Amino acid sequence: MTAACPIPNSRYSQIVLGHGSGGRLSQDLLEQVFLRHFTGATLRELEDQAELAVPTEPGARLAFTTDSFVVSPLFFPGGDIGRLAVCGTVNDLCMGGAIPRYLSAAFVLEEGLPLEVLDRIAASMAATCLEAGVEIVTGDTKVVEKGKADGVFITTSGVGIVPRARRLSIAAARPGDAILVSGPIGDHGVAILSVREGIDFETELQSDCAPLASLTRAMFEISPQIRCLRDPTRGGLSGVLQDIATRSKVGISIDEALVPIRPEVRAASDLLGLDPLYIACEGRLVAVVAAEDAERVLRTLRAHPLGQEAAIIGRVLSEDPGVVSMHSRIGGERVVPQLSGEQLPRIC
Amino acid sequence: MTAACPIPNSRYSQIVLGHGSGGRLSQDLLEQVFLRHFTGATLRELEDQAELAVPTEPGARLAFTTDSFVVSPLFFPGGDIGRLAVCGTVNDLCMGGAIPRYLSAAFVLEEGLPLEVLDRIAASMAATCLEAGVEIVTGDTKVVEKGKADGVFITTSGVGIVPRARRLSIAAARPGDAILVSGPIGDHGVAILSVREGIDFETELQSDCAPLASLTRAMFEISPQIRCLRDPTRGGLSGVLQDIATRSKVGISIDEALVPIRPEVRAASDLLGLDPLYIACEGRLVAVVAAEDAERVLRTLRAHPLGQEAAIIGRVLSEDPGVVSMHSRIGGERVVPQLSGEQLPRIC
Repeated sequence: MTAACPIPNSRYSQIVLGHGSGGRLSQDLLEQVFLRHFTGATLRELEDQAELAVPTEPGARLAFTTDSFVVSPLFFPGGDIGRLAVCGTVNDLCMGGAIPRYLSAAFVLEEGLPLEVLDRIAASMAATCLEAGVEIVTGDTKVVEKGKADGVFITTSGVGIVPRARRLSIAAARPGDAILVSGPIGDHGVAILSVREGIDFETELQSDCAPLASLTRAMFEISPQIRCLRDPTRGGLSGVLQDIATRSKVGISIDEALVPIRPEVRAASDLLGLDPLYIACEGRLVAVVAAEDAERVLRTLRAHPLGQEAAIIGRVLSEDPGVVSMHSRIGGERVVPQLSGEQLPRIC
Repeated sequence: MTAACPIPNSRYSQIVLGHGSGGRLSQDLLEQVFLRHFTGATLRELEDQAELAVPTEPGARLAFTTDSFVVSPLFFPGGDIGRLAVCGTVNDLCMGGAIPRYLSAAFVLEEGLPLEVLDRIAASMAATCLEAGVEIVTGDTKVVEKGKADGVFITTSGVGIVPRARRLSIAAARPGDAILVSGPIGDHGVAILSVREGIDFETELQSDCAPLASLTRAMFEISPQIRCLRDPTRGGLSGVLQDIATRSKVGISIDEALVPIRPEVRAASDLLGLDPLYIACEGRLVAVVAAEDAERVLRTLRAHPLGQEAAIIGRVLSEDPGVVSMHSRIGGERVVPQLSGEQLPRIC
């Protein structure tokens, strides 16, 4: 904890209960931290609610999503809870085919949190919003007593606009479709674990945490036949494939040799007894695409900085609805079971 | 903690880390608790984002808001954290003149929370949504280790529709306008405190916690000259008046004798050394209304079950911009100072 407070004009160097009071100290925190970083005009009006423009294209719909973030530690290689909180919600909107537009951000702060930590998190959120093309338009802050939370929890909600022609759904996969992944899996989860467990890699493994808005935009420009997009966060690739198989009432077969996994991730997983198929990513997507568009979408992904290691990893089958199977490196087909309990707590 | 689990088909009687994994146990929690109570069709599609209809009236806007709820205790006379989480966000939408429509709900659960407690909270949220005319369309659940949160924190976000003609703003109060309050102040804060401090009232004081959608609808039907609405939550009546005075660059004068306060609230405040002007309500509103509409709006409020004890408590002045003053019962005018720190932590 720093003795001197690095935040301009602040009387406190850490969060006190009064910062959640709704009085002068709440106002100070808003001005000294949040409004310094979140500079959008709507937020600055400080109403209890933000007013948003309504999309005007006939047939457009709104997408609306929310996620809480409780990741531990708050800072990790390649990201932090703030970046994660923006990416998670932006990506959930993108996976619905939406153009992400507006975010809300609600903070639960633990008494004693250094203000400097909150400031770094807010700065990271602002930078990630810029990268994703979204604006934080409304927010809230609560403070709980020391020991009643763990530093900071952030809940973001997002509103985006779904163009008329886009109709994606977890239930839309059809036999014959190709399954793509936009890059190596498990980087985020292993990056977090490496900090928690003190594992040293020769090269530092970074979380893949990134907003996918520009990547999905490029995909939609090239193919109208994207059936379904999902980001493999908690539950990992396996969880997403299981959801698609169940909800689309199809079988899914993937080829182990085609699933991109970094050697560090594979090594750390072996060491810790984890399966990369279940480890969270925060900047990857799984796409189900009509077979005839698969190569075109793959090229588009690979031409994008966030999709350079994209791959076609499998296909959708009519047989065995609800079942995900994997053709292993050593030959043979095995069923990929659904994760039953917790593999890695507080990964996001 | 109950030995047998009252939740149908659940293997667990309390929350375990695996309930936040994104795997089978997360799915179980969703089906066994949340989907039993939140029965809207959009949520049941279980996409990562909800699709909403876009308002079609030309000139309509969207309202978007968020709040986290960390109230302690989780259950209190007249409400619980679930009811509060719905009312708080619904009311923030209403205060912007919006018709509340869609809610998101994100839960941070502490390992060990009895499932039965979560079930009661979800049931209360569902009942309050019905009362408010809103639907929970998307959500999220995270679990943190025992001791890293305090039972349950809930963050709700809301989307509503603001009809074309409505333009409310905290900056819209004009000299001459009347200030109304829809009922007695401080009930919520004192109800919470009475549980925390073990104060016994002769009659049980209930929180005023309620969704105000039907009340604001009635007000808008009767008057096009409502300048500004605010719900006096954290910071209480004083905080709201201070905000209006500052942001509208006007003076505000209220009359102590006209501010409705229940005898129990006054007695408890005296006992605890608190000023009711700063104590949170969760089902009241403050309205700034053109003088010529004030009586009409007052009658409308009083004709509604949630506004029976409404009162005109003061007026907007051109002098002393930014200053809230109060004409006291014993004569004389005093400035009402802004709350500096925390009066009552975790009141909402």
